[in-house]
Amino acid sequence: MTRTEPIARTERVVVATHDDPLTLVCGRTLDHIEVAYETYGTLNAAADNAVYVCHALTADAHAAGIDPATGTPGWWDAHIGPGRPIDTDRFFVVCGNLLGSCLGTTGPTSDDPATGRPYGLTFPPIHIADQVAVHRRLCAALGVRRLHALVGPSLGGMQALQWFLDAPEEVDRTVLIATSGRLSAENRAFSAAGRQAILDDPGFDGGRYLERDGPGPVHGLAAARRFAHITYVSGGSLETKLGDEPAAAWPPADAASWLAPSRAVETYLAHQGSVFVERFDALSYLYLTRPMDDFAPFHGAGAARARAAVAAHPGVPHHLVSFDSDWRFGVDHAARLAADLRNAGARAVTQTELSAPWGHDSFLLDAPGLPEQLESALAD
Amino acid sequence: MTRTEPIARTERVVVATHDDPLTLVCGRTLDHIEVAYETYGTLNAAADNAVYVCHALTADAHAAGIDPATGTPGWWDAHIGPGRPIDTDRFFVVCGNLLGSCLGTTGPTSDDPATGRPYGLTFPPIHIADQVAVHRRLCAALGVRRLHALVGPSLGGMQALQWFLDAPEEVDRTVLIATSGRLSAENRAFSAAGRQAILDDPGFDGGRYLERDGPGPVHGLAAARRFAHITYVSGGSLETKLGDEPAAAWPPADAASWLAPSRAVETYLAHQGSVFVERFDALSYLYLTRPMDDFAPFHGAGAARARAAVAAHPGVPHHLVSFDSDWRFGVDHAARLAADLRNAGARAVTQTELSAPWGHDSFLLDAPGLPEQLESALAD
Repeated sequence: MTRTEPIARTERVVVATHDDPLTLVCGRTLDHIEVAYETYGTLNAAADNAVYVCHALTADAHAAGIDPATGTPGWWDAHIGPGRPIDTDRFFVVCGNLLGSCLGTTGPTSDDPATGRPYGLTFPPIHIADQVAVHRRLCAALGVRRLHALVGPSLGGMQALQWFLDAPEEVDRTVLIATSGRLSAENRAFSAAGRQAILDDPGFDGGRYLERDGPGPVHGLAAARRFAHITYVSGGSLETKLGDEPAAAWPPADAASWLAPSRAVETYLAHQGSVFVERFDALSYLYLTRPMDDFAPFHGAGAARARAAVAAHPGVPHHLVSFDSDWRFGVDHAARLAADLRNAGARAVTQTELSAPWGHDSFLLDAPGLPEQLESALAD
Repeated sequence: MTRTEPIARTERVVVATHDDPLTLVCGRTLDHIEVAYETYGTLNAAADNAVYVCHALTADAHAAGIDPATGTPGWWDAHIGPGRPIDTDRFFVVCGNLLGSCLGTTGPTSDDPATGRPYGLTFPPIHIADQVAVHRRLCAALGVRRLHALVGPSLGGMQALQWFLDAPEEVDRTVLIATSGRLSAENRAFSAAGRQAILDDPGFDGGRYLERDGPGPVHGLAAARRFAHITYVSGGSLETKLGDEPAAAWPPADAASWLAPSRAVETYLAHQGSVFVERFDALSYLYLTRPMDDFAPFHGAGAARARAAVAAHPGVPHHLVSFDSDWRFGVDHAARLAADLRNAGARAVTQTELSAPWGHDSFLLDAPGLPEQLESALAD
């Protein structure tokens, strides 16, 4: 069957200005925020068919369709489109790039209007609630005041949950995939070790590398990505893909070639680091990983407010999906989040564990059962 | 109960000279090898009470007793001593530092006698069989020709197994703890990402950092260690120790303090990296991790020879011990190694999984059941 893929162009809209700045959770204001976004399908007259898709850590607004400039399909193109689980014949689908990213939305690599130079570390600390606030302004600009569904994998699931907690009256349901309501100590350890590899790289130079020539902290960023990548896949999928190589050839020519990445799993991982530094920025990596560590809506100072939001809207369905091979945000995270929601009074929480071999990245791949989960979650 | 701890001094012996060089697996020769070692107890007249203890990746010859210079107990002092599981009232216990290490035995940080300058990457590639060959020369120098037992955790278990395969007639039994007969793709991925962090660090300078002032690749080495450390512990033990900290305080003072290691798990991990670079060398880290990747005695070119060694000595007991929270070399590794040994004809393989919460590092800690396993393995 041939299918003509829709063309998707990334648009940009300014959602905060000098006259209408955004005050962040940290108390500072941003008076120029631009958001990169894409939409698919058509907002109906009642404006009640919008589905907001929240992206994961290093993804972008190009969730579906084919980018006309590059020919690249969107990161969730398998699930979004005419006749697909997030059906654009029925829904108006929106995806916006996150505040703090380097892929179209304002972040630490953007120029500070006050100085004309890149923010670097003068960009304010951000909270997931700030990322939500920016995307709520995007929705307002698009005429969307209510969401049929908020759908997000990984960090996207955290964003979706935070959105519901901040504006439950706008949200008809959430679909929270391979995500967490609070990172484990191990999650935070991996996160911290990655950030420190960047911060310690002499190329980071206190975040001023954007203002001078040179490669910046590419070694630290590549190292962070390589280790993070291991946590995104499963031991089993690495074994299937790369494990069955022959034993190392002995003797090696010399110590340098013996020690260098040369075997399948090594060149694969080296490649993951190298391509990542071409497409992503170290400051954005820092600014987007830290909010995940901070995210713990049902613990600490904000917990009472979060529980009150849930209790006031107890019938909103929350669909939690996890993958059995995901050792980053697996079923234990989903179970804890489901318990937090139920303990706060949510009466329509479902929790489904799907079997898929690819670890955390299963949400990006052809995981059996995921299309059906999306379809039924949006249909109920 | 007060116990007077024995004093243990690290000694040194030259085991290869210009007149009696060691030819390595790679074909090159080393004509000066010095080995740092310690012994505990007394070799009996029949010279049949020797127990060789093989250390893990970054440990040293100081396995037991108190170092008189530093007051530090040996890394396995809980298990080695008078009346302890490896009973020095009965056994003559030997531990030697590994070829390639920087803790007393010749390695890439040693001076090349041919040039008078540190080897760096001109040090030859080494195989675990080379490390065994060096320690067999150490035993010969001590008058030990036969081992009541070879005992080793982690890389030490690989060394013990290789020793048995290379010289089965010298070995009465092996005790292989938290070890592997072949690394998984995930193990090798972590290993490769750590090495690449070092190799990519501009401070590495092709391994010539030893010849000039400056700190060397300390950032890469610290990053490698921090990530490796996460794989040495368990998610559960991190959670118990460091997970129960309060949610992050908001707002942070500024972005730099927000991003820096500040919370318990982060400062703990930062510390692990910082203290490691004080005590260990990046070249040795490369030269000791790579042989673990290469180790696969029952696969590839050497497999027939390994199986023949096992088949010729089928009654030698092999005691395999793993820990249930070890996600590095856990029960799956032990089960595969047990199967490899049995398939080759070994008739006295036992495999025990102990319950201990500290992940791979359980072998270093007070793991319930480990003393009993050591005691019974050596008694049989």
